[in-house]
Amino acid sequence: MRSADPVDLDAVDAIRHDRVDWRFKGLPADAFGGTVGELVDRRPDLFADGFVGPLVVLDAAALEHNLATMARWCAEHGVLLAPHGKTTMAPQLFARQLAHGAWGITAATISQVRVYRAFEVGRVLLANQLVDPAGLRWLADELADETFEFTCWVDSVAGVERMTEVLGTPPRPVDVLVEVGAPGGRTGARDHDTALAVARAVRASPALRLAGVGGYEGALAHDASPGARATIDRYLESLRDLAVRLRDEFEVDEPVVTAGGSAYFDQVAAALTREWPFPVRPVLRSGAYVTHDDGFYRGISPLGRTPGAEPFRPALRAWAQVTSRPEPGLALLTLGKRDASFDEGLPEPQLVRGRDGAVRPLDAEVTALNDQHAFLRLSPDDPVEVGDWVGLGLSHPCTVFDKWQLIPVVDGTTVVDLVRTYF
Amino acid sequence: MRSADPVDLDAVDAIRHDRVDWRFKGLPADAFGGTVGELVDRRPDLFADGFVGPLVVLDAAALEHNLATMARWCAEHGVLLAPHGKTTMAPQLFARQLAHGAWGITAATISQVRVYRAFEVGRVLLANQLVDPAGLRWLADELADETFEFTCWVDSVAGVERMTEVLGTPPRPVDVLVEVGAPGGRTGARDHDTALAVARAVRASPALRLAGVGGYEGALAHDASPGARATIDRYLESLRDLAVRLRDEFEVDEPVVTAGGSAYFDQVAAALTREWPFPVRPVLRSGAYVTHDDGFYRGISPLGRTPGAEPFRPALRAWAQVTSRPEPGLALLTLGKRDASFDEGLPEPQLVRGRDGAVRPLDAEVTALNDQHAFLRLSPDDPVEVGDWVGLGLSHPCTVFDKWQLIPVVDGTTVVDLVRTYF
Repeated sequence: MRSADPVDLDAVDAIRHDRVDWRFKGLPADAFGGTVGELVDRRPDLFADGFVGPLVVLDAAALEHNLATMARWCAEHGVLLAPHGKTTMAPQLFARQLAHGAWGITAATISQVRVYRAFEVGRVLLANQLVDPAGLRWLADELADETFEFTCWVDSVAGVERMTEVLGTPPRPVDVLVEVGAPGGRTGARDHDTALAVARAVRASPALRLAGVGGYEGALAHDASPGARATIDRYLESLRDLAVRLRDEFEVDEPVVTAGGSAYFDQVAAALTREWPFPVRPVLRSGAYVTHDDGFYRGISPLGRTPGAEPFRPALRAWAQVTSRPEPGLALLTLGKRDASFDEGLPEPQLVRGRDGAVRPLDAEVTALNDQHAFLRLSPDDPVEVGDWVGLGLSHPCTVFDKWQLIPVVDGTTVVDLVRTYF
Repeated sequence: MRSADPVDLDAVDAIRHDRVDWRFKGLPADAFGGTVGELVDRRPDLFADGFVGPLVVLDAAALEHNLATMARWCAEHGVLLAPHGKTTMAPQLFARQLAHGAWGITAATISQVRVYRAFEVGRVLLANQLVDPAGLRWLADELADETFEFTCWVDSVAGVERMTEVLGTPPRPVDVLVEVGAPGGRTGARDHDTALAVARAVRASPALRLAGVGGYEGALAHDASPGARATIDRYLESLRDLAVRLRDEFEVDEPVVTAGGSAYFDQVAAALTREWPFPVRPVLRSGAYVTHDDGFYRGISPLGRTPGAEPFRPALRAWAQVTSRPEPGLALLTLGKRDASFDEGLPEPQLVRGRDGAVRPLDAEVTALNDQHAFLRLSPDDPVEVGDWVGLGLSHPCTVFDKWQLIPVVDGTTVVDLVRTYF
């Protein structure tokens, strides 16, 4: 088998040839009919050159900082990184993650894997058991490309049986990791005897090859308290113990052992890189680091709470205009549930930009989002006016990216790139 | 001015020529590279012909029932309907609403208006004050099409001034409605003196023409209790009173008076069609009726709580597969915040479809959604298996449509159309 190319850079670059038009929220009307590349090459100003609100933008410097910081951190800690691509679903960002040394890209669904493969991402982890017959048949066809390295989860004998039934005897078996969970958690075998039975079912299947052990600690805790961190550590020990117990079951020389969202990846790296009795590949799957945030991940990121660590920087910002000032202390913004995340905290007002272009800090709070409006509560004597732009930090990037198909990347107020998402 | 064509049916029909591929979640891989029309013409089966989960589908019969029911109701009650298109952002559905007699289509943002105009929707209400300079300039250009009837809201003298400043002296003035709100509400002038000042500012503006009065009752209450309904009635009386007070200010012969979401449109119709001292056009803007739902609107729809009325039917359903059965009483579905609404109640499990195709009712509850997973709690002895499909009702259609770009319309399990959305 040839070694996988990380991604088809020509396909990624071809996004520059996509047509800009009314399908994309917020872009300048005078760019309609031209291409993404033509608009980017103009280096338009976000506030002077025809963009309409609301907008969500990515900060070029913060993005590059986060990519480099995570790459360095993983290298220093001896872990491979297969960032979860579901966060952004943006092949341009996948290419940059891979250029920064990412080992592969993780997906949540087979529809996402199809997007990845349209850009020939060479190594894909599907962090779920795949039992959809049509999805499995598509996968079997896709595996005809011998450079494609694909791995998915299994967590039940029933799942192994369904996969085997659909796949039959494929040209090469599908690599799978036994997923271990924990009581109260999400997917994953709840005990090691179950996991061992799953592993043996995989070995008995002509369609599958046992390639390691996987899990996800992020469903077990939601803060950085000592109790939460101890829960995470116990789970990671269970993951390690299972990998050791399965040593003689693996059908590859160097099994993958993987876990890691964006909240506890320090503990994951520590657990996965402690000495092993045999060679393993320790793989993190954190995805949200690319943009970080001004909410949930700001509060929980290991690099934010570890003294001396270089923290990630928030790279996402929403800009929306004041459309109404109906009462003292209340402004309505043209930003709603269609534009901003609201599931892990509401947008955080940070700045106001007046009609003269002057920017000042804003002391205010978003108290509610409707489909297309934000309620901004502010001091009764705040001079925010109808037409002013308000800049807002966002929490939970996963539910921001899926609301935007073409996202300006800015250096200051200059648009230097446009990132395409595929949800 | 020529009378507006309701919509460019050729442009709507051209959606059939769009290419089907990996950009669209869930569609059959063997249709990739072909067109929407080709896939529809095959009449594929949702469960046998290559669709992959999770999916959201529209029920063809429920859709048609809702379109016809609302059209009949509006005709019987003497109100015009400009349904809020932000619910679906689907020109194919706009065309059907217009074919059922809708008077126009309502939008929330200028980016939405641009989508409407790509399909030449002839009459558009923008239910917000438009103060974005780039948006106003685009609008001024668009008004060069003399058949385009456009109306937006104004609720402050500052807003009128900003609009006037950008628009200058356009070829024809922009029609505006003075928006009246209420304390504790969303946008809209909080008292009639303010509204009168706004109306006079409009009259003084060469860029604007005062064409009526608008408002939105839905932000003032959230249930159908007598107290909530009384609040709505008081607001509607205020809207009426303002229209009467502005009688001599209007710059059109027959001003528009408009309100109406999907929760209280019976009260809105009653208030707007009571005898007026001068001719007015009463316009409802309800949008969610097209699909109705299995949650918020099921609970509050006037046609559901009025004895003898023909209720709307839920037209949206999600289908997702069981990807894991890690504990008795717990199943994980391949359905998450990326696929289903979660802001007005979680998805409601209704049916399970086993591998043999047999469908049975399901007594279960979705207790949480992650980005890409649903937690399904069920009876410990429920025989749901890994790979089974679960059918779920959804609440709040507005936050379902924006997660899907091409939605199968089904008659039973046969796909008879695909509806394209533009968010």
